[in-house]
Amino acid sequence: MKKVLFILSLFMIFFGCKNPSETPSSELKLNEKTNEFAIIIHGGAGTILKKNMSDEKEAEYKAKLEEAIKVGHTILKNGGTSQEAVMKTIQVMEESPLFNAGKGAVFTNAGTNELDASFMDGQTLNAGAVAGVKDVKSPIELAIKVMTNSEHVMLSGDGASQFAAAQGLEIVDPRYFFTQNRFNSLERVKEKEANKTANKTSAFYDETIKDSKFGTVGCVALDKNGNIAAGTSTGGMTNKRWGRIGDAPIIGSGTYANNKTCGVSSTGWGEYFIRSQVAYDISAQMEYQQKTLKEATADVIQNKLTNLGGTGGVIALDKNGNMSFEFNTAGMYRASMNDNDELIIKIYKE
Amino acid sequence: MKKVLFILSLFMIFFGCKNPSETPSSELKLNEKTNEFAIIIHGGAGTILKKNMSDEKEAEYKAKLEEAIKVGHTILKNGGTSQEAVMKTIQVMEESPLFNAGKGAVFTNAGTNELDASFMDGQTLNAGAVAGVKDVKSPIELAIKVMTNSEHVMLSGDGASQFAAAQGLEIVDPRYFFTQNRFNSLERVKEKEANKTANKTSAFYDETIKDSKFGTVGCVALDKNGNIAAGTSTGGMTNKRWGRIGDAPIIGSGTYANNKTCGVSSTGWGEYFIRSQVAYDISAQMEYQQKTLKEATADVIQNKLTNLGGTGGVIALDKNGNMSFEFNTAGMYRASMNDNDELIIKIYKE
Repeated sequence: MKKVLFILSLFMIFFGCKNPSETPSSELKLNEKTNEFAIIIHGGAGTILKKNMSDEKEAEYKAKLEEAIKVGHTILKNGGTSQEAVMKTIQVMEESPLFNAGKGAVFTNAGTNELDASFMDGQTLNAGAVAGVKDVKSPIELAIKVMTNSEHVMLSGDGASQFAAAQGLEIVDPRYFFTQNRFNSLERVKEKEANKTANKTSAFYDETIKDSKFGTVGCVALDKNGNIAAGTSTGGMTNKRWGRIGDAPIIGSGTYANNKTCGVSSTGWGEYFIRSQVAYDISAQMEYQQKTLKEATADVIQNKLTNLGGTGGVIALDKNGNMSFEFNTAGMYRASMNDNDELIIKIYKE
Repeated sequence: MKKVLFILSLFMIFFGCKNPSETPSSELKLNEKTNEFAIIIHGGAGTILKKNMSDEKEAEYKAKLEEAIKVGHTILKNGGTSQEAVMKTIQVMEESPLFNAGKGAVFTNAGTNELDASFMDGQTLNAGAVAGVKDVKSPIELAIKVMTNSEHVMLSGDGASQFAAAQGLEIVDPRYFFTQNRFNSLERVKEKEANKTANKTSAFYDETIKDSKFGTVGCVALDKNGNIAAGTSTGGMTNKRWGRIGDAPIIGSGTYANNKTCGVSSTGWGEYFIRSQVAYDISAQMEYQQKTLKEATADVIQNKLTNLGGTGGVIALDKNGNMSFEFNTAGMYRASMNDNDELIIKIYKE
């Protein structure tokens, strides 16, 4: 009997009843520090096809993505905070007419530009967001100010602008957001509506206006102190009306950050990202199911979002500096940079 | 050796390495149908103390909670949908000046009433929400119309009102929402601000205005077809400014429903409910950690929300008709009713 007990003991030691979900490969992966600091960005996902893109346009997008990500990377490399890196990186994209955020925002049905943004701090789980602002130059900066200088998480409309002005943020004439290209997109959508050739979703799929919906920008960064920050900024969708709010300013849908797990910024068909709780769901799967970042982003985008009929993508970065691009569209403007100065810039699926 | 192998086999059969999170008591509980249909409601959580409440006031609240829940219960009993039950039940509370929703909405800093609401359908994961509407009699009905009759999930401000009018919903003069009691609360908060006796959070804790923040209403129902629906409606917080949006219209924070897990409606200090992703987190813990409804609501409210400094509560109902009231405040106006016509109405902690 002693022999049996001895073997049983050995058995228990070697094959002990550990909860598999708390252990093996994923845990190893979760605990390896890949990068001391890292940064990842997107400039929107959608029907971005090589055949529709000139070489010049492609070069222009890539150059702007590189310029933006290097601003944040330099901040992180010099020991700056992920908050600063995310804000400054997004501001480069907000100031470019290439992306549907800030300067390049799309037009509403009323011919105005109404901007949304959100930010989350993974250390404190503090967050800030704004929806429907018309005259604030940098919505991402305003979202951060809502977080740091108000007792609120989310402000909207004229009230948000008043808060911005009181905080000394740069207020611009709404005409600052006028770009001919975006205005033409609105005209085309309205023409289609008038001709009754548009169905409920044609605005999303018309190739001529393919970027009118999917140009949101976002950034997630991990700094040397291990703090993750995530931010998202957008002009929403062309021809939007009724004060429509998409996922970009919704904490948990468009943006989420938690030092325990990861940071996420979404881009795509906002309604589906809200219904799928995309950004927080990635964190929840990592926390509760011990999934890796790659496993969680793949499940949320390729299974859950796709099954619901949603299109778009995310950028995500975990506490160990692992990064993930995940999208179910033809392309996503995207870039990443690690602590070894390795830069990846991509547009199409590859 | 045969004996050893035999004992090892027995050992493996009886104490086999099953993943504990995928099994025992919680799974049993998860698969038992407790109620064929059920309904649960709240009328806000906060510093609700017996010593501050007259017997008449208490009776008034209880009578209104009973009236509201019976409307929904009758719908469910007769085979109606959870969507119908949630809407009609919340409308009874919206039409009462007792609760901070609809008729009894609190005042903004500008002396207006700005209403938020959201609704989610657990079968389709469709959702609708509105923020900052000033002249729509039933914000919960508008949230449902956004879900069923628009391609959007969330509308805001005047645009949401235009949509409501186009849908034939009842538009009221904003003075409909005037109640002397709520207006007095605003005056008291402003007086305190002027006297500089208010600090950043005093509006939340001042006993004289204790209900000015925490009077949100909500309802979750399970119908005979196994469909869960959840809805929330609120006037937000007294003296709110800058177009502040709380958790009530945020899917995943104020409201969530999923036939696979549960339905949730939140009430409390909205900013913390957004940061904690309260409503969806309860569902995620059930789905990913196989927690029971009770375990998930307790963790999210008593641990996660409380540790962050947030106050408030939730009502929740799972796919088997189990129900949970969970709050970390002194009280929560609440009621539940099961398929056996058993009615529970409570106000204080007990």
